[in-house]
Amino acid sequence: MTPSIIDKLLDRAFEEDLSGGDLTTEACVLPAAQARATAVARKPLVVCGGEVFLRAFTRLDPEVEARVHIAEGTAVEKGAVLWEVRGRARSLLMAERTALNFAQRMSGIATAARTYTSALAPGSSTRIADTRKTTPGLRVLERYAVRTGGAHNHRDNLGSAVMIKDNHIIAAGGIGPAVERARARAPHTSRVEVEVANFAELDQALAAGADIIMLDNFSVEDVRAAVELVRKLPVRPILEASGGITLERIRALSEAGVDVISVGALTHSAPAADIALDLAL
Amino acid sequence: MTPSIIDKLLDRAFEEDLSGGDLTTEACVLPAAQARATAVARKPLVVCGGEVFLRAFTRLDPEVEARVHIAEGTAVEKGAVLWEVRGRARSLLMAERTALNFAQRMSGIATAARTYTSALAPGSSTRIADTRKTTPGLRVLERYAVRTGGAHNHRDNLGSAVMIKDNHIIAAGGIGPAVERARARAPHTSRVEVEVANFAELDQALAAGADIIMLDNFSVEDVRAAVELVRKLPVRPILEASGGITLERIRALSEAGVDVISVGALTHSAPAADIALDLAL
Amino acid sequence: MTPSIIDKLLDRAFEEDLSGGDLTTEACVLPAAQARATAVARKPLVVCGGEVFLRAFTRLDPEVEARVHIAEGTAVEKGAVLWEVRGRARSLLMAERTALNFAQRMSGIATAARTYTSALAPGSSTRIADTRKTTPGLRVLERYAVRTGGAHNHRDNLGSAVMIKDNHIIAAGGIGPAVERARARAPHTSRVEVEVANFAELDQALAAGADIIMLDNFSVEDVRAAVELVRKLPVRPILEASGGITLERIRALSEAGVDVISVGALTHSAPAADIALDLAL
Amino acid sequence: MTPSIIDKLLDRAFEEDLSGGDLTTEACVLPAAQARATAVARKPLVVCGGEVFLRAFTRLDPEVEARVHIAEGTAVEKGAVLWEVRGRARSLLMAERTALNFAQRMSGIATAARTYTSALAPGSSTRIADTRKTTPGLRVLERYAVRTGGAHNHRDNLGSAVMIKDNHIIAAGGIGPAVERARARAPHTSRVEVEVANFAELDQALAAGADIIMLDNFSVEDVRAAVELVRKLPVRPILEASGGITLERIRALSEAGVDVISVGALTHSAPAADIALDLAL
Amino acid sequence: MTPSIIDKLLDRAFEEDLSGGDLTTEACVLPAAQARATAVARKPLVVCGGEVFLRAFTRLDPEVEARVHIAEGTAVEKGAVLWEVRGRARSLLMAERTALNFAQRMSGIATAARTYTSALAPGSSTRIADTRKTTPGLRVLERYAVRTGGAHNHRDNLGSAVMIKDNHIIAAGGIGPAVERARARAPHTSRVEVEVANFAELDQALAAGADIIMLDNFSVEDVRAAVELVRKLPVRPILEASGGITLERIRALSEAGVDVISVGALTHSAPAADIALDLAL
Amino acid sequence: MTPSIIDKLLDRAFEEDLSGGDLTTEACVLPAAQARATAVARKPLVVCGGEVFLRAFTRLDPEVEARVHIAEGTAVEKGAVLWEVRGRARSLLMAERTALNFAQRMSGIATAARTYTSALAPGSSTRIADTRKTTPGLRVLERYAVRTGGAHNHRDNLGSAVMIKDNHIIAAGGIGPAVERARARAPHTSRVEVEVANFAELDQALAAGADIIMLDNFSVEDVRAAVELVRKLPVRPILEASGGITLERIRALSEAGVDVISVGALTHSAPAADIALDLAL
Repeated sequence: MTPSIIDKLLDRAFEEDLSGGDLTTEACVLPAAQARATAVARKPLVVCGGEVFLRAFTRLDPEVEARVHIAEGTAVEKGAVLWEVRGRARSLLMAERTALNFAQRMSGIATAARTYTSALAPGSSTRIADTRKTTPGLRVLERYAVRTGGAHNHRDNLGSAVMIKDNHIIAAGGIGPAVERARARAPHTSRVEVEVANFAELDQALAAGADIIMLDNFSVEDVRAAVELVRKLPVRPILEASGGITLERIRALSEAGVDVISVGALTHSAPAADIALDLAL
Repeated sequence: MTPSIIDKLLDRAFEEDLSGGDLTTEACVLPAAQARATAVARKPLVVCGGEVFLRAFTRLDPEVEARVHIAEGTAVEKGAVLWEVRGRARSLLMAERTALNFAQRMSGIATAARTYTSALAPGSSTRIADTRKTTPGLRVLERYAVRTGGAHNHRDNLGSAVMIKDNHIIAAGGIGPAVERARARAPHTSRVEVEVANFAELDQALAAGADIIMLDNFSVEDVRAAVELVRKLPVRPILEASGGITLERIRALSEAGVDVISVGALTHSAPAADIALDLAL
Repeated sequence: MTPSIIDKLLDRAFEEDLSGGDLTTEACVLPAAQARATAVARKPLVVCGGEVFLRAFTRLDPEVEARVHIAEGTAVEKGAVLWEVRGRARSLLMAERTALNFAQRMSGIATAARTYTSALAPGSSTRIADTRKTTPGLRVLERYAVRTGGAHNHRDNLGSAVMIKDNHIIAAGGIGPAVERARARAPHTSRVEVEVANFAELDQALAAGADIIMLDNFSVEDVRAAVELVRKLPVRPILEASGGITLERIRALSEAGVDVISVGALTHSAPAADIALDLAL
Repeated sequence: MTPSIIDKLLDRAFEEDLSGGDLTTEACVLPAAQARATAVARKPLVVCGGEVFLRAFTRLDPEVEARVHIAEGTAVEKGAVLWEVRGRARSLLMAERTALNFAQRMSGIATAARTYTSALAPGSSTRIADTRKTTPGLRVLERYAVRTGGAHNHRDNLGSAVMIKDNHIIAAGGIGPAVERARARAPHTSRVEVEVANFAELDQALAAGADIIMLDNFSVEDVRAAVELVRKLPVRPILEASGGITLERIRALSEAGVDVISVGALTHSAPAADIALDLAL
Repeated sequence: MTPSIIDKLLDRAFEEDLSGGDLTTEACVLPAAQARATAVARKPLVVCGGEVFLRAFTRLDPEVEARVHIAEGTAVEKGAVLWEVRGRARSLLMAERTALNFAQRMSGIATAARTYTSALAPGSSTRIADTRKTTPGLRVLERYAVRTGGAHNHRDNLGSAVMIKDNHIIAAGGIGPAVERARARAPHTSRVEVEVANFAELDQALAAGADIIMLDNFSVEDVRAAVELVRKLPVRPILEASGGITLERIRALSEAGVDVISVGALTHSAPAADIALDLAL
Repeated sequence: MTPSIIDKLLDRAFEEDLSGGDLTTEACVLPAAQARATAVARKPLVVCGGEVFLRAFTRLDPEVEARVHIAEGTAVEKGAVLWEVRGRARSLLMAERTALNFAQRMSGIATAARTYTSALAPGSSTRIADTRKTTPGLRVLERYAVRTGGAHNHRDNLGSAVMIKDNHIIAAGGIGPAVERARARAPHTSRVEVEVANFAELDQALAAGADIIMLDNFSVEDVRAAVELVRKLPVRPILEASGGITLERIRALSEAGVDVISVGALTHSAPAADIALDLAL
């Protein structure tokens, strides 16, 4: 993550929370007062966002000392001390909520990613991938959190890779023409993915030479059949399962041999991780 | 919500998703192609974010026609058609994900707010309030969603009102001095809230003349006792319950007579509402 | 004041003044030349804005050394040395006007605030408050300057507290319904203020349970009568005098016992304080 | 003034005032309520800022109808109706303060400019000019207001023209070398101005071929002598009086024949013009 | 291209050129004066940037009427009328240079792209691709211009696809491990490209299963040999020639059968197209 | 160049290139790996942009050590080492392209400026000047590069000086009235330039007292005649040649005695200088 991008996000958050100052802290805490604070997991979680968390404090006050206790991506138990800051009590109090809002969201996503990847069949090479269903403005952080939790990123945005869906197919006059047009226009560095709803479309996508085929709302049995179908091909495309994915279906889908399972819930519905700041003057 | 603030949020989201264009749509869909799309609830939800959803399309393409089908704050069943857009197919496809990312989050929060307020004892005057545990950069939208769902907002930010917590009390040398200092400094338009952890602190907060007292992690019984205590006073402060609030405890807390229950989960952990865009060329 | 907010304001100012470089300094002063400069009061004033003044230089050139000579809020005589910077002569010359433009405005407002608070009756508990009549884009600095001068801030913005004026009353169908609606919607941390133009409205505001009542354009005698009226109440609201406030009326108004006097001129019409930069190569 | 620059300034102002919404208006005024409002001079003033004032309303709500009653630069009496807006009552109430904050400042500066230009000797060709002592971030508006009031602009910023002051002279080793260096570096479209403190320096500036000579803190008699001195030259430079300019000295300085009188107070200390918004539902 | 992204670029350009207004136009041209202007090619060129060119005028003044005469991507002769605007003479004069600066650059790049693609062997399927050597801040426009001229885009940025260069190989401990690591981390939608300097590295890249192999500074003969080598493989990677590409070598390289030729000069050294604005009052 | 302006430009460039991270570097290079990189001229060039180049690395990673080897404005041969950076290999690889994109453009322009100034007749006092035909958003850098190469800047923007062209003349009713109006309105620090197409207009411009006269598309002979014409005047204006300037005509034009030759190609068509980054782990 690029520092100037993080700083921009922090500055926006500070504008939300601190544009009118901090009435309470300015009234109650002397400028010279020092404090030490530790971020503590209040429930088990996968650690993520330490850089952003600590940067919130040092961005607000460059003299704050910041320290990482536990590395990104570590699964910790309740009570684990994740990060630590020391410096002016005012600075620690004023940045506290902003720092936690970032860290709780990021750790929440990393924890969800770990939950999903842990549900894969042991030894499976299936990857869990995120989607573009991210919080507007925070995609860079959320994709990082997904990776930190052990899952993978899907394409970054609409310009990174081709994903042909039903309406693109209708507009182009079929899967074949759609793939052909996309291939002709897209950078040669981008793969071409086609979303299919049934086996007839799967056949067309294979005929069109799609690099990736997304099996939309396929049952586990149908996913397995699709995997077996493509395994016989000399050049096999990547198969991705998507749509209605629940944690319960992950194991069966990975056992069915699909390459990728994409899960919107990783980013749009991961509950915040429970992290508290223990601050001592 | 101020249009220029919404547009700024949309522009940031477009930069994330469209800075490299839309490879697929530009390849497959002719510029002249027209389409119509409706946003449909795929599960029961409370409608929220129509203005932002529709503005995503008209911001990207001022010629798109936008229409609201169901008013903000309405609880709908699965299948309800919420909003509709018509215009260039390219514009609809390119704005689709951005529009949905906003609307799903906002409706998700409104739905959570409705769930919590519906759990209050019938006829109760207790209000469910949000916290500052919002998504960085989106506080204005999330507070709106909380209100749309029927809950209430807490203070907007650190400069809107005084909230004296444990470290402020330590720094100021007690609840009394903390309230006094805050009162002396804060705008006369802001109330002074004190967080207390037990009855001894509650007594001090009452003695200090706090306008609002937050009962932090009080049991339902203790909340009830606190309510009874303050009811006897000539000028009673507002009592707020906070900390470890779960949906299951809402009814009992409201029956105990507390004025406000603040719930961080409203904003930091509400799952996205399930809304799909049905697009027809 | 949050550093990132100050830096943003400084960067805007630099874009105004330095987007085309500094023709004169770049031509006449060698890059290696060093200098020392002191900010000197050329007339009596209340010191304010040292942090912003010094940051202008260190933002432009992190190697500049900055030093505070006199603390914020101090009333000084002509000739007092307020702040000092040392470093590259080019940096000092290029940041000079920007630094002074901020400091002169901030010290001007602090000086005006001191003038008004000094006009209060000795021992009075009346506070002088600012208004939202601030320079667009600089509200955070101007509110800080008001506090530095010894006056108080009114609500930060339209979202911080409720202020019911004539048109709100008309729209709501009376003072009673207006207060009720505002109370029902506003955060429980915000007080509800009502502006009244006469005693009839004052009675209605009292009946409605307004927390603060603004006496708009009341004579000193009427203010005194209003104060006496509310003193008899078991729970008395805060009384604020506003409208046509001049320095000459401050003493009488405070003697009349009003709690707050709000003065738009503090921010919209305070003349710049006279501060010069004495620079020696 | 460029629309996108005005919009940027308005958006910043809205972020200050409306980032938390408008608690009062949203509670008391129905979305459908319509209103009409007129901006009225409450004291004599020179009209300035109509475009920004009206744009505040239409930026917030494009359906507001905006109308100019009195042209920019007109001197009006108390009671004059300057501008008018019609539309949603909510929009008018929410933009009111922002619109007035801009207009009062701009009209205040235009009024000050008119006061100074009116003090010139009748028929005088002397111009009153502003300085770079403008409000950070608002220079473009303030320079426009100066022109609207009938005064003139000095250089826009440090990159627009050369102004050689005492420290530049020291650094360059004298007025001659300073002018030479500046001439060699600056665009050929920029004039070279030299600030002089006495007649010896004036002679050097003349010898160096300065295009403009600023007489810093010269008495009226010395200004007159300087004017007579340069009138005898085949190519005469422009003479500018600056430093300690008060309204009282304007007439004498113009009678002394100086070309330009620059007045920092035009922008840094002009009191806000008194404009009210009369709003009727 | 997304309108809000174009507007942001235009606003920055206006800030550069118009932050101090337009002294000449405001002095010489009455506000009411109308004019008509046409953009005319003064030399043969490929038309590109009409949308940005016209938007410059309508962004500055929404009442300007804008009209496209010749479609994007058309090769025109000297004298061709490309675009037309009508409206306030002031608006046309003030936006003229900004509009042309964008259009001349974009048409310059499109013209260069056409020149390179025209140099390919007739019937060749080789594509000319751009690189990341774009003007900072204008990548989106320049990549569009490349496509408009008939060439192709390479990856959008460092996050869109994998490109393994010499230092990555050293750091990873060889081409094999580098490809493996990148494959394990990158989105499944991104291809993996490896840059090779000789046939030994080419063999390693093939063994590692690279999707794309960039032949860096290969002679035409070596390119041909590489093409023949990979043609024998069951799954052939895409071959890209890069480094020291000149217009003269394009034909031979395409005849050698390489899939892609990437040319930094398309964006970093394309001379501006010669377009003038003929403006008639 | 102001640091905050440079940082803003760098941050925009990083957003373009790094908003999705650097897939390759993050996969292949360990965070702890260190490297050293030198920027090397691959062809003769005039060095420019070292500050921006080095700042790209330290902005991305403040721990990178940056060092200048060769001073700005130096003409170097192929192989010269210009700048050096040491630090985390990841940081060097991620900032490489951004740093080079700036430096190659700036050095390209400086090199072009040197080429043009070197073509002047020996001992000539004619200056080569740039125009407003700069890359949108990068004017500040490009004007600096022009100066670094030894050429001069023309006016910064439309607000810095007056340039009266054909349409201004038509609108104002002649050269005389146009000059008069501009003179009356423009800051006294700005010169007034008039563009003339023939000797009749030249006479009118002289009569009007223009400070600078631009001879638009004059032949060398006509330029010489114009120079001789004005040399006889008691106060001679500056003469500027413009339009259709090629490198071949520079010497003759300077021998003809014109004061300024303005060349749009300096900024709009200078090819990028060839600079490579040699990076060693």
